[in-house]
Amino acid sequence: MTSLAVRYTAARTLTTRPADTEPPGPGQVELAPAYVAICGTDLRIFHGDMDARVKAPAVIGHEMSGRVVRVGPGVEGYAPGDPVTVMPLSWDGTCLACRRGYRHICQNLAFIGIDSPGAMQQRWTVLASTLVRLPDSLALDRAALVEPTAVAVHDVARAGVSHGDRVLVVGAGPVGLLIALVARASGGEVRVVESNPQRRRLAEQLGLNAWDPTTDVVPERLRDWTQHTGADIAFETSGTEPGVQTAVDALAVRGRLCLVAMHPGLRPVDLHRFVWQEQTLIGARLYERADFETAARLIDAGTIPADQLISRIVPLIDALGAFESLEVGGDVKVLVDCGASVLERAA
Amino acid sequence: MTSLAVRYTAARTLTTRPADTEPPGPGQVELAPAYVAICGTDLRIFHGDMDARVKAPAVIGHEMSGRVVRVGPGVEGYAPGDPVTVMPLSWDGTCLACRRGYRHICQNLAFIGIDSPGAMQQRWTVLASTLVRLPDSLALDRAALVEPTAVAVHDVARAGVSHGDRVLVVGAGPVGLLIALVARASGGEVRVVESNPQRRRLAEQLGLNAWDPTTDVVPERLRDWTQHTGADIAFETSGTEPGVQTAVDALAVRGRLCLVAMHPGLRPVDLHRFVWQEQTLIGARLYERADFETAARLIDAGTIPADQLISRIVPLIDALGAFESLEVGGDVKVLVDCGASVLERAA
Ligand SMILES: [Zn+2]
Ligand SMILES: [Zn+2]
Repeated sequence: MTSLAVRYTAARTLTTRPADTEPPGPGQVELAPAYVAICGTDLRIFHGDMDARVKAPAVIGHEMSGRVVRVGPGVEGYAPGDPVTVMPLSWDGTCLACRRGYRHICQNLAFIGIDSPGAMQQRWTVLASTLVRLPDSLALDRAALVEPTAVAVHDVARAGVSHGDRVLVVGAGPVGLLIALVARASGGEVRVVESNPQRRRLAEQLGLNAWDPTTDVVPERLRDWTQHTGADIAFETSGTEPGVQTAVDALAVRGRLCLVAMHPGLRPVDLHRFVWQEQTLIGARLYERADFETAARLIDAGTIPADQLISRIVPLIDALGAFESLEVGGDVKVLVDCGASVLERAA
Repeated sequence: MTSLAVRYTAARTLTTRPADTEPPGPGQVELAPAYVAICGTDLRIFHGDMDARVKAPAVIGHEMSGRVVRVGPGVEGYAPGDPVTVMPLSWDGTCLACRRGYRHICQNLAFIGIDSPGAMQQRWTVLASTLVRLPDSLALDRAALVEPTAVAVHDVARAGVSHGDRVLVVGAGPVGLLIALVARASGGEVRVVESNPQRRRLAEQLGLNAWDPTTDVVPERLRDWTQHTGADIAFETSGTEPGVQTAVDALAVRGRLCLVAMHPGLRPVDLHRFVWQEQTLIGARLYERADFETAARLIDAGTIPADQLISRIVPLIDALGAFESLEVGGDVKVLVDCGASVLERAA
C-alpha cells in the first residue's frame, strides 16, 4: 500500500506525498502513527538549522503514539492493534558509555527522526526493540506526550527530587513545564521562572506559581518562599546564561542544580559558590526505558494533565501550518494527526 | 603560669613572647599543643593577605596535636594527658545550614586559628566540644596531620570514590596529595597531575603516578590509562582555570568532578559537556567530626604515611624561619614543635 509522509525538503519547506511501504524485515515492526507532537528539535530542523545533520528529503518527528500494523519475522510480544510509542534512540552497544550501561548517552548515539526516518507519516517501520507498549486505557493523543514526559521523568530522577523538596524550574517551555509537573508529582514544592507572559499564564493554569525574572521579583519571592533558605533543587531548562545565573543564585546549601538544556560555548560559573555551600551540578540528557514506562503511567493516571498541554491537533496534510504557527509562539504542544486511530479501528 | 605564643603582628612578621594563661572556664579545656603544622591559609595570613579578617596581633595555627592539661567546670570525658586534636570550627547552630545538619558549612562559620586564637603556643584554651580524641598509639607529630587528612577524607567521601574507580587528582600540593592517598586507600586507582617537578617527585615517592600538564602528555596518558574511557572521578585542587579544564576534559561519561579548591571570580565552564555525558560537579568544603575520626585511624594505621609528608620539624622559637622556608617551596608539611610532648611527659 501507499501511505502519506510529511518530508522536510529544505528550510521552511515540508511536502506531503505518498510513500511506498514494504513489509517489515526481521526484528522490525510496521506502525501506524496516530499522533506526532512537534518539539523544539523538529522546529530547528524546519528552520534549516540542522541541515548538516538531517539529509533532506527527510521524514521527521519522534514524539509519537500509534498502533502496530504488521510484525516482521522473529518479533515476539507484539500483535497488530497494540498501542505503542517509540523510544527513538539507536546506540552502538559497544562504546564506553554503552559498556557502562549508559546506552542513552552512547558516544555514537543516533536519534530516530533526526538521523533516520521519523514518525510523521501514516506507516512507519522501526525496530521492535525501540517499542514501548502503552496502557490500553491511555488515549493516543495524550500518549504522544510520553516521550517529552520521559525526558522530565529522567531529569527529576537525576536530580533526586523527593517529598518536601523546594524545586525551582527555570524556563517554562514544554520541557520546563513537564519537569515542574513531574517534580510536583514526586512531592516537590515547585516554582517556575519564565520571562514569556504567555508561558507564565499557562504555567499558572497548570497550578504552578510562575515568576517573571525580568522584574527583579525572583530573589524576594525566593526568600519568602524558602524562608531565606534557597531552593533544594533548581532545573535549568532555558539554555541561557541568565537562566544559569538564576538557577545557581537560587540554590540552598547542599542544593542541586540539574542542567537539562544545551549550553553552547563556555558559560561563566561561580565555582566558589559550589565549593562554599557544597552544592552539586548534575547533567541530565534524554531518558532510559524505565522513564518511558513511568511517563506513560503518569499521563494515564492524569498526574500529568496532557490534555492541558496539547494546544491543537492538526491533520497530517496541514503539518506545514502547524510548524508555522509554532514559530509565532503561544502553543505548547501541537499534534499532527496521522489518522491511524481511525484507520486501525476500521481495520 | 606563662607560656610562649607565636603571634602574627604584621605582614611577614611573627613575634614569640610569653603569654599569661588563665584557668579554663566552663566547658573549656586547656591544651598543651605538641605540634602545629603550617598550612596554606597560615601562609596567606603571614603574607598579610588576610589582614582584613585576622586582627593582629593574632596567634594562628589550626593543624595540631596536643595533650589535655586542665579541664574547666562541667567538662566530662577528658582528663589531663589525653592526646587530642581540635576540629577548628565554630558554628552558630541556628542558621539554615546548621538547621539542616550541615554545621561545617554554617553561614556564619568562624574558623579557630583565623577568627580566634590558634594553636601556635604552649598553652591553648578551647571549647571541649571542639576536641577529637586521638588513639594512644598515634605519635603526636603524625597526629598534626589529622586535620588536613580530614579534609581529604571529606572530599573523597563527597565524590563517592569506591573500589576500582579511576581517580585523577589535579594538583599535588598537600591537599591534593592527601586526597590521592585517601582515594587510593578507598580502592581508587589514582593518577596525579602537577606542573611543579618537586611536587611530582614527592608524589612519585609516595607511589603515585604523577603527570606533567605543561608537556601535553596528559591526554595521551589518560587515554592509555583508561582505555579511552576517561576518569570516573577528578578532583580539582589547584584553584586554577587550566586545572578546571584538565579535570573536566578527563571525565568519563557519568564522571564526577569534585571541586575542592577555591576559585575566585567566574570560571568558564563547558556546561554542554556535563549535560551531554551526564556528568556531575560536586563542591566539597572542610570536614565533619566523623572525617577527623577516620583521618586519625588512617594515619594511625600507616595507610596515610604521615612521616613522608612531614618535611621538617622546627622548635616554636623558630616558627618565623619555618614560614620563610615554606615560601621557597619544596617542603610539604613543616611542623612547629610547641614542646608539649616533653612538658607533659615530665609532668
Ligand atoms: Zn554506545
Ligand atoms: Zn550556622
